[in-house]
Amino acid sequence: MATQEMPKTLLTRPGDDGFRMPGEFEPHMGCWMLWPQRGDTWRRGAGPAQKTFAAVADAISRFEPVTVGVSRDRFANARQMLHHRIRIVEMSSDDAWMRDTGPTFVVNDKTGVVRGIDWPFNAWGGLEKGLYFPWDQDDRVAAKVLETEGMDRYRAPLILEGGSIHVDGQGTLITTEACLLNPNRNPGLSKAQIEAHLKAFLNVDQIVWLPWGVANDETDGHVDNLCCFVRPGEVALTWTDDAQDPQHRISATALEILSVTTDARGRRLKVHKIHQPGPLFMTETESREIDLRPGSRPRKAGDRLAGSYINFYMANNAIVMPLFSDPHDPAAQQVMADLFPGRKIVGVQAREILLGGGNIHCITQQVPAAGPARQPGDRGEAQGRDP
Amino acid sequence: MATQEMPKTLLTRPGDDGFRMPGEFEPHMGCWMLWPQRGDTWRRGAGPAQKTFAAVADAISRFEPVTVGVSRDRFANARQMLHHRIRIVEMSSDDAWMRDTGPTFVVNDKTGVVRGIDWPFNAWGGLEKGLYFPWDQDDRVAAKVLETEGMDRYRAPLILEGGSIHVDGQGTLITTEACLLNPNRNPGLSKAQIEAHLKAFLNVDQIVWLPWGVANDETDGHVDNLCCFVRPGEVALTWTDDAQDPQHRISATALEILSVTTDARGRRLKVHKIHQPGPLFMTETESREIDLRPGSRPRKAGDRLAGSYINFYMANNAIVMPLFSDPHDPAAQQVMADLFPGRKIVGVQAREILLGGGNIHCITQQVPAAGPARQPGDRGEAQGRDP
Repeated sequence: MATQEMPKTLLTRPGDDGFRMPGEFEPHMGCWMLWPQRGDTWRRGAGPAQKTFAAVADAISRFEPVTVGVSRDRFANARQMLHHRIRIVEMSSDDAWMRDTGPTFVVNDKTGVVRGIDWPFNAWGGLEKGLYFPWDQDDRVAAKVLETEGMDRYRAPLILEGGSIHVDGQGTLITTEACLLNPNRNPGLSKAQIEAHLKAFLNVDQIVWLPWGVANDETDGHVDNLCCFVRPGEVALTWTDDAQDPQHRISATALEILSVTTDARGRRLKVHKIHQPGPLFMTETESREIDLRPGSRPRKAGDRLAGSYINFYMANNAIVMPLFSDPHDPAAQQVMADLFPGRKIVGVQAREILLGGGNIHCITQQVPAAGPARQPGDRGEAQGRDP
Repeated sequence: MATQEMPKTLLTRPGDDGFRMPGEFEPHMGCWMLWPQRGDTWRRGAGPAQKTFAAVADAISRFEPVTVGVSRDRFANARQMLHHRIRIVEMSSDDAWMRDTGPTFVVNDKTGVVRGIDWPFNAWGGLEKGLYFPWDQDDRVAAKVLETEGMDRYRAPLILEGGSIHVDGQGTLITTEACLLNPNRNPGLSKAQIEAHLKAFLNVDQIVWLPWGVANDETDGHVDNLCCFVRPGEVALTWTDDAQDPQHRISATALEILSVTTDARGRRLKVHKIHQPGPLFMTETESREIDLRPGSRPRKAGDRLAGSYINFYMANNAIVMPLFSDPHDPAAQQVMADLFPGRKIVGVQAREILLGGGNIHCITQQVPAAGPARQPGDRGEAQGRDP
């Protein structure tokens, strides 16, 4: 038996090596998550959040393999709470946001190889309005995922969270200025330098800048709570009809920009609105049940929650989307069914994740399957950058 | 994509399910190890042991994939110390003996499926002369390895360490009474009951009982320091010509028993002697550099070390064996070369492992490749139980 080539850290850039970041709607090998446990993010010692994470993992695992990273202390309990078809591995982290701490996977369509980008992580802003300290274990998550998968790793030269970008897999990236240009991320880099890194690492030609994320989003406005590609040429956008809601101006401005945008292939983007839930706010009880801790962002009663149906996960043949026991739930489910006619729409009651500051997309990270294969049931042109 | 079948805990027994434990000399998929760090086992804060473990991992990884489980605290440092072709995963443990805490893998030659047996572990004797307390993290290692590998798990009904057994893969098992019948392991089980479990779990018909392990072996006498199968029908035995050495009676008695033993297929066993190093003893300096701790076995100057060349690892196409800067080293290497003419003999200076109470075989666990394939260069008949 020949010695197998094992993973290593590369000093090159994915785009230069023939790798691209696929759209989330392209086929997956599987999905990674982390297990919530910190009491200053999750109320009641994280028990209700764990039940919700388990429901999300269960829903996704019916469509693709799921691995959950769990700390040493919670390992045995997580094993009891998660279905046996879900793999769990020991993995320390500071909190449970795999989208933001995990690797961004890139594929080489010619060779079928998948690699990962490990972005430095500073807890959404470091010591300047970051959400907690320390974040050293979070910063190691991406490398550990890649070690476990046996995949080569690129260590990127800029701080970035996976939730701050969406791509169409064909050369176009959407992001927000409020987050990516925030001086608490990469104060030493100009907008042009950030664009150059994104282009070289994700293999995109065109970057669509929206000004802000969802109202009161504590990530400084991740795009994955506001707007996402549902396929090349089409995006979904969180929306409100209430002109008095601060979200209205945010969504209307985004719509204005998107409506006049052509993507990397010269297509005019088609925008699908999904009306937001609520608005939703943290209750007195919920706030009281979250542990106060110096160094972590306090979560106060009456705080507006950045609720959005856009924060969903595209699994193979399925959409796993958040529900809020809200009057807008049925309409959002209907839009989703219309947008993804070949996929099963699975709703998960997800207020417990929202209380922690994110939602289903934030706690998941897809591992793409390499190659330009078409996702069954998806409309639109063949996927993969070089068909 | 169909949902992949994920691992689970089985309530059946491997033998009944058509699985057998292969001989270590059969082909491997890879090898698992753990990373040493406790200062009451390993001197100087485990630094010298880590260098030696890294050398062992490096040697094996030239012939088959190696994964090393490392605690959260030592992860970053281990990544620096280990070659990038070695995979590391986060894994808590109480010490670093993967042979004894890891799973015993079993294969189904018809289906090609590999599964693992997770034996309960009590630190070589629990509260009655066990080596340390607690051992709860060690007891979870086997399950974690199997989760990571995506393999089904059998949880066995008896306490057993992997180092206390060797098999020929064709129905024969060797073990020692001093260890397996020690009341600090399974006080509620008779010899007949223990035999019945071994037969059902490892798919063996014949159990060869030797009375004792190597002189002053702190495991209560693991067979893997005394005697091993080098192929079906042939064993290697540690030996001394010095009739005054307590090891002499141990080895001579074992030789007497082995010489009149026929294996499960009716073959008379051929015994190859390998003369022991030393005898070796712990020095004043070495003892002083090990941290004293209540609850852990003290390691005193002048203690006899259970040095043996038998404690080696059989990798694909290679033998990775311990050396001790001892006058007996060259002869042992020569015997090994004669015993394994198709394999490269790689020696590693391993006194640092011996100071902790074991050697290369104790810190490794092979993952067999399923199927009755023949190891290139091995003499003797085709391997696999049902050729």
